[in-house]
Amino acid sequence: MSDDKPRSHGRLAISASVKPRELMTDTPRLKGAWRSRVITLFPEAFPGTLGLSLTGKALQEGRWALETIDLRPFGIGKHRNVDDTPAGGGAGMVLRADVLSRAFDEAAVGTPIDRARWPVVYLSPRGRRFDQATARAWAAADGITLLCGRFEGVDQRVLDHYAVEEISLGDFVLTGGEIAAQAMIDATVRLLPGVLGNAASTEEESHSNGLLEHPQYTRPQVWEGREIPPVLMSGHHGEIEKWRRAEAERITRERRPDLWAARKG
Amino acid sequence: MSDDKPRSHGRLAISASVKPRELMTDTPRLKGAWRSRVITLFPEAFPGTLGLSLTGKALQEGRWALETIDLRPFGIGKHRNVDDTPAGGGAGMVLRADVLSRAFDEAAVGTPIDRARWPVVYLSPRGRRFDQATARAWAAADGITLLCGRFEGVDQRVLDHYAVEEISLGDFVLTGGEIAAQAMIDATVRLLPGVLGNAASTEEESHSNGLLEHPQYTRPQVWEGREIPPVLMSGHHGEIEKWRRAEAERITRERRPDLWAARKG
Repeated sequence: MSDDKPRSHGRLAISASVKPRELMTDTPRLKGAWRSRVITLFPEAFPGTLGLSLTGKALQEGRWALETIDLRPFGIGKHRNVDDTPAGGGAGMVLRADVLSRAFDEAAVGTPIDRARWPVVYLSPRGRRFDQATARAWAAADGITLLCGRFEGVDQRVLDHYAVEEISLGDFVLTGGEIAAQAMIDATVRLLPGVLGNAASTEEESHSNGLLEHPQYTRPQVWEGREIPPVLMSGHHGEIEKWRRAEAERITRERRPDLWAARKG
Repeated sequence: MSDDKPRSHGRLAISASVKPRELMTDTPRLKGAWRSRVITLFPEAFPGTLGLSLTGKALQEGRWALETIDLRPFGIGKHRNVDDTPAGGGAGMVLRADVLSRAFDEAAVGTPIDRARWPVVYLSPRGRRFDQATARAWAAADGITLLCGRFEGVDQRVLDHYAVEEISLGDFVLTGGEIAAQAMIDATVRLLPGVLGNAASTEEESHSNGLLEHPQYTRPQVWEGREIPPVLMSGHHGEIEKWRRAEAERITRERRPDLWAARKG
């Protein structure tokens, strides 16, 4: 599936070492910078999209760190097996507790034991759903460890033993946890100081105040016979604010009655 | 942020052409294979994780197709501007209707007009939430067009004009739509015939029957003093099924009272 040719992200060195590899090691890491550690069978999936745009710039500036821990070298025997058939039968394979245990031990080196300061998470559709409040809590932590599965379950005992929290990206099933990890890291990293800069505001956006965002318009003023709503061109800031608020409330009511109800409750 | 060095995915040719680039063009595309078209300012983010493991194998086998449409060449003026300041003021920038219109026209070439056969989607936290039912509906379509934003809004008129559906990955905000697009494509592609093979079952997993999955265990039988529940080692298939069902119900009740309530209703 993967090959060993260099990628455009030349700083990513793939090796069979059991040590966590820090991606983009030729860059400084700012003191106290937020750190993410990802346990995965596909370390080459990282940094992926996280290496582009604002998250990529912030990674190069050392505002956050990304380390992958390849699960394969912790496997058993000549073939480095990481999984086995489910006890009691059934389809799929289950990641072994003893193999995962070594990866979790490695990931724990130098991290605080307090799970609030360093959440340890298994990305699983069985988990609590990830949301903006989770992203805020994680951004306030020192860092995070994420375990990615791959069309497999995980032995429940290792989740219990390490007090691993199961978090779900949403009510759907992915081939693996890698894309979910990238989504959660992206949502968290953009809340860190200095990452977004002035490019965008996290204050007015959807899910920051329990409302979906109002519609947006820009030039040209008339497009395909459709005009920008006149109030937005009026220059009356009070009226514009009132219109935007009313639109945000209307859209939230129409599209997400659950959010609207939670807000009123 | 991006450079033009070749990546390990050597089939990905980056060019300034306004034509959709099909990724992995040296591979066959099976007749009637499911197709995804992604409009993005970061085409180099693809195929990303989708090029690995089972989704990558299926992509190489032509079981599905991935084309990116770079938004930049449709931009205006020497700098190919794609966005402008929001009408009425405020932070951030808004993608222009006239620029997006050309990208949507390009993406529509050769696709059915019926939105059920070819959904056209803007990835936005304002949208309806993506879920397993959406993945199933998309997998039954001929293909899909996804528009990725980047910490920007989109001019509402282009969404209205093209009957673009807004779909959200969840109640959180990402730096851009690229990771969300990858998550939704992954969830959809794995449901296509022949993609998962015998590697996993989509029948017994979480969200396939309104329940979260029961816990899994595998060898060794005792790990760190923790035993596999004896019923799973009993060989009594009826008892094992009963235990798994009860566990799935317990976990769903405890973790997702909303799913449990929806099920009972």
